[in-house]
Amino acid sequence: MNAAPLSGLYAPSLALVTDLYQLTMAYGYWQQGLQDREAVFHLYFRKAPFQGGYAVAAGLALAVDWVENLKFSEDDLEYLGSLRGSKGNAMFPAEFLNYLRHLKFNCDIDAVPEGTVVFGNEPIMRIQGPLLQAQLLETALLTLINFQTLIATKAARIREAAGPTDQILEFGLRRAQGFDGGLGASRAAFLGGADATSNVLAGQRYGIPVRGTHAHSWVMSFADEVTAFSAYAKAFPDDSVFLVDTYDTIEGVRQAIKVAREMRANGHELAGIRLDSGDLAYLSREARAVLDEAGFPNTRIVASNDLEENLITSLKQQGARIDTWGVGTQLVTAYNQAALGGVYKLAALRKADNSGWDFTIKLSEQVAKTSIPGILQIRRYLNEHGKPRADMLYNTAEDLPNHLMLVDPADSTRRLPIRPDTQYRELLEPVFRKGKRVLDLPTLAESRAHAQREVQSLDPSVRRFLNPHIFPVGLEMGLYEYRTRLILEKRPMRSA
Amino acid sequence: MNAAPLSGLYAPSLALVTDLYQLTMAYGYWQQGLQDREAVFHLYFRKAPFQGGYAVAAGLALAVDWVENLKFSEDDLEYLGSLRGSKGNAMFPAEFLNYLRHLKFNCDIDAVPEGTVVFGNEPIMRIQGPLLQAQLLETALLTLINFQTLIATKAARIREAAGPTDQILEFGLRRAQGFDGGLGASRAAFLGGADATSNVLAGQRYGIPVRGTHAHSWVMSFADEVTAFSAYAKAFPDDSVFLVDTYDTIEGVRQAIKVAREMRANGHELAGIRLDSGDLAYLSREARAVLDEAGFPNTRIVASNDLEENLITSLKQQGARIDTWGVGTQLVTAYNQAALGGVYKLAALRKADNSGWDFTIKLSEQVAKTSIPGILQIRRYLNEHGKPRADMLYNTAEDLPNHLMLVDPADSTRRLPIRPDTQYRELLEPVFRKGKRVLDLPTLAESRAHAQREVQSLDPSVRRFLNPHIFPVGLEMGLYEYRTRLILEKRPMRSA
Repeated sequence: MNAAPLSGLYAPSLALVTDLYQLTMAYGYWQQGLQDREAVFHLYFRKAPFQGGYAVAAGLALAVDWVENLKFSEDDLEYLGSLRGSKGNAMFPAEFLNYLRHLKFNCDIDAVPEGTVVFGNEPIMRIQGPLLQAQLLETALLTLINFQTLIATKAARIREAAGPTDQILEFGLRRAQGFDGGLGASRAAFLGGADATSNVLAGQRYGIPVRGTHAHSWVMSFADEVTAFSAYAKAFPDDSVFLVDTYDTIEGVRQAIKVAREMRANGHELAGIRLDSGDLAYLSREARAVLDEAGFPNTRIVASNDLEENLITSLKQQGARIDTWGVGTQLVTAYNQAALGGVYKLAALRKADNSGWDFTIKLSEQVAKTSIPGILQIRRYLNEHGKPRADMLYNTAEDLPNHLMLVDPADSTRRLPIRPDTQYRELLEPVFRKGKRVLDLPTLAESRAHAQREVQSLDPSVRRFLNPHIFPVGLEMGLYEYRTRLILEKRPMRSA
Repeated sequence: MNAAPLSGLYAPSLALVTDLYQLTMAYGYWQQGLQDREAVFHLYFRKAPFQGGYAVAAGLALAVDWVENLKFSEDDLEYLGSLRGSKGNAMFPAEFLNYLRHLKFNCDIDAVPEGTVVFGNEPIMRIQGPLLQAQLLETALLTLINFQTLIATKAARIREAAGPTDQILEFGLRRAQGFDGGLGASRAAFLGGADATSNVLAGQRYGIPVRGTHAHSWVMSFADEVTAFSAYAKAFPDDSVFLVDTYDTIEGVRQAIKVAREMRANGHELAGIRLDSGDLAYLSREARAVLDEAGFPNTRIVASNDLEENLITSLKQQGARIDTWGVGTQLVTAYNQAALGGVYKLAALRKADNSGWDFTIKLSEQVAKTSIPGILQIRRYLNEHGKPRADMLYNTAEDLPNHLMLVDPADSTRRLPIRPDTQYRELLEPVFRKGKRVLDLPTLAESRAHAQREVQSLDPSVRRFLNPHIFPVGLEMGLYEYRTRLILEKRPMRSA
């Protein structure tokens, strides 16, 4: 129990990556005989992160892996059996633990492919299956999808700021939220648009290109910068990026050039220099001028130091001469919004007599927290150029009318009729059927390419950072009307 | 390389949890014959997080575990051997990989015990040993110590706001930055002052008490709240906390009371109700009044919904009647400052002829980023009540003068002479000697108790959230003067 064998964490079972209440509810459902009642949950966020106009869905491959390996180990069951209530009674009876021991996952899961652009209130995943099982998936799915989607979106924004040709290197491991926070961030950052990572484990695990420069300590370990740079160039004659700000940046650039000349005499070229402090706009222009004048116009300038999309935009506006962006803390922790508020809400429950569905809603005290009932699908309508025009959420358990109308749930006077011949695609795809995977997952590189196409397909007004245009996401009129009736029915009416 | 076998992550070797440049520098040192040159690095942050006055050091036990298990597996070496430079050449030669294969960690590590209060620029860890090895530890140590210290500090602040007797439940897993982000956050939150977690894996792994209520979906799975609450009470007759805001909070409280009466008739008491939305100050007062009037003055009121220390303080000022705080996102991601900027800087290097030490400094373009040379220790002077009065950083490789004077490195006119009889303790303790652990680690519960004593020992002015008093941390005069000389020596002098 003590001293945290962290590497011991990296262990057989991840079934206990969950909130206790998932297990207490599971016990309650089991006790009530409700464990197999068919239920539908949606996983969605309410607002795109970073006050932005969109998010890049990510994390599905990790979620699939977790679900496929979901099994309570004997250690897990022993731990659960050891838990006590306030009166000293066992929290879970042995029969229930035995039920968990033999539990076989057999839900259906539909999900939006990784890299797809999504908006607030759109289900990224839809889970349909036995109530107890579908409930048990909640926490781990949220943890994975929330974080991956958050970081992939941040990376897409940084790509937007850097432009299509600049290099983006993710350097964040040391400031990440734990080892797996770093590993997951490297994955999502690459998916969302980064070119490479400094995280060697992420390179090994996911095939992401690994890149790096050297630290200040390298320079400090030698008598002077020339000696330090020369030694590094000896080790990596064609791949050296010298960190020039250990003592004084521009002086450092001059020392780097001395070594670059030696390298050139031996048939090698200095790949780049790196700036890690100070006024990056000014210093990069100066460094560029010094390098160009010395005959090194192809030596790249790498910059780092708390960079994020707004700072990169500002540096570019100031004429900074930076062609490689080392992005760390701000990317891997999504520093300015460190969590995506994804939720997992029950939306349909099979009637006890199996005659059909009860669609369910949660009201709460805040309008924005009111859920959407039904077994939802997202239909994305395209304009004449094949670009996204509007998204419609609809209940697949009901027939659609011939004339479709979208209603903005936040302002029901905003409506959009859909012409019958409008092209569309549907975003939720089958991933599991009865617990068996039916989807071949794309490679991470494929998901990355998909993400870039997806983001590029959005109008620039939706992609901009400041007050982005709100992409229209509406409820199908029938769903809107049904939801409104359900709210009125469930909300207690009090007289003034 | 594809499809992210996440549970596969949880695997034999964590040696590749590092930045590529640690390995490229290692290769460079090895090539230069510098691998065994004795070096000293300090791990420290420059400013306490959250604009606060202190931090709670944490993560040592995790770091010890990582270091003790540090070994390159054959898979790791094979991956490193597969890496290519831009010309298609192998990044690392086979002889170097063989060196890594047989590398045996034999550094000395000193560290501040977990739970100890620390301030900006104070080394939380000091690593002394072969240059290559000490450099290789950098990234993983930073990842672990940065995140654990950040979250433990956040938890201490939330404890400060909640007061000593309220319960603090950490509920953050679903918004955490990955599985291990969640697990690590649960550990650090408990260490820093939380009472329990919803994270079952954290309960299993670290012995942290686990707690929970139920979700909205529980209520939505039954015909009405009374039926739902009754079913939950059947499962947990003495440990039920009903979530009352699925439809309407105060109405929910009334339904809870109906069930609480049934429970009481059967010899049980409703443990609590939970509010998860809306105006928590108003709703908690209303709920308290309704519960009290109905004869349930001991039913606790649990509140959740993006709580953090400032909101808790404000709710208390508004007379909220909340006695249990469910804190999630804001705690586990340290939402308002999602990373601690800890760094790892070379501070001393044995002279090539072994005659003594070269103390090293990094200047950079920003004064705040200038490092402190030496082999440092932190001496904490105590006042007449045994409480911290001031901290002195000094170089253990130099003799101390009889008359000690502290100098504020940010303002050298601020000085504090130390009376010779002033009581003190020294914060860095030996953890490893020549690669062998020499410290028995305390249990997590012991570290938690230590943290509470440590924070309580600080003057309230240092603990307050808004513009806290700055606890004096000075350099010993000799060290200050040495550092100043080194800066002047290293900084290029340019005429105006």
